[in-house]
Order: sequence, then C-alpha cells, then structure tokens
Amino acid sequence: MANDTFRALAHPMRRDIVERLADGPATVGEATRNLGVSKPTLSRHLKILEEAGLVVREIEGRTHRLSLDVDPLEEAQTWLARQRAHWARMFDVVDDYLAEQERGKT
Amino acid sequence: MANDTFRALAHPMRRDIVERLADGPATVGEATRNLGVSKPTLSRHLKILEEAGLVVREIEGRTHRLSLDVDPLEEAQTWLARQRAHWARMFDVVDDYLAEQERGKT
Repeated sequence: MANDTFRALAHPMRRDIVERLADGPATVGEATRNLGVSKPTLSRHLKILEEAGLVVREIEGRTHRLSLDVDPLEEAQTWLARQRAHWARMFDVVDDYLAEQERGKT
Repeated sequence: MANDTFRALAHPMRRDIVERLADGPATVGEATRNLGVSKPTLSRHLKILEEAGLVVREIEGRTHRLSLDVDPLEEAQTWLARQRAHWARMFDVVDDYLAEQERGKT
C-alpha cells in the first residue's frame, strides 16, 4: 500500500501528473502534455501510477481517460500524520516527566 | 523536498525506522534492531533518510544517536492534502454546474 504510494510519488514527473489530475479527469495527452519526455517514458510513469492505484484509466474507443483515486493519498497522509502525532506525544511524555521531577524537588 | 521525502519513505524498511524514531530518539543499534539485513544495507537506508532530512544523527563519543525531523513529513502531508482538496473541489464545481443546469430546466 503506502509502499507503492510513496514510491509512485517519489518522481517529480509523476507528482506533476497527479497534480494535473487533481484538477479533474483528463486524457493521456492532456495529463502528460509538455512534460518533455518520450512516450515510452511517459507510459512507464503512468504504469507506476496505475499500479499504485493512484491513477485509473478508462478506455472509450480510442480515447484513454485518466482520473485520480485519492484513497491511496489519504492512506499515505494518515501514515504521515500518525508519525508526527507519535513524535509530538513523545515530547509531551518528556515534558510531563520533567514537570513531575520539578514538583518532587519543591 | 517532497521528492526526497517520498523517495525516502518508498522502502518499507525506511518506514520501519521512521516509525521507531517517532517513539523517540534512539541509537543506531536500537533504531535498526532485528531488521534482518546487513550493516552496509542499514547504513545505506539510514543515509537516504538523513539525506532527505527525515533523520538527524548526533554523535556523542562512540554513540550515534538518531532522531526524527518531522518537518519533511509535514510538507509531504500538506502536498497530499492539497491534491485531495483540489480533487474534492473539482467535484463541487461539477455538482454546482449540474444543479445550475437543473434549475435552468424548470
């Protein structure tokens, strides 16, 4: 899960594509316009995004329409928030301990 | 920035280390205990986390103490939240448009 999500978002070009799709579904041409790389490279990036479940491809005749699935983004966000919360709580515990020590002295 | 953060978090072993450090600073030995890989592999993973600014190493004599820097986590979280917000807003715009169309009919 988060593994693939973070891996998929590790490349700036793939984040560009996600940012474009966040504004709404788009054709492959629209979602990858002016990225300045070859078609095979674009296909490889799209494949990684699709395999991670971040991008969904619908085929209507000759048009390939891409849209975002935000569920993996939410999952990744939750993981990040959890680490920050643990870190913050650890400081609270240290603060409480120090305050306790301080009270013991007086 | 987010590039390195997402790349650093793309490997499950590096996420394990971040999770351990989220509970508090630890020595290299504590932070990497029982991960079942060789020391050079662990060093390489730690290097990637340090280069991304997620992990900070303090050297006290022979002890290397690692702690987390949560700022890059926050940055990555903000980026994810922004994409989800754009995606949600896009649906609101579509809903408003459809409601407008509906009103036009009556």
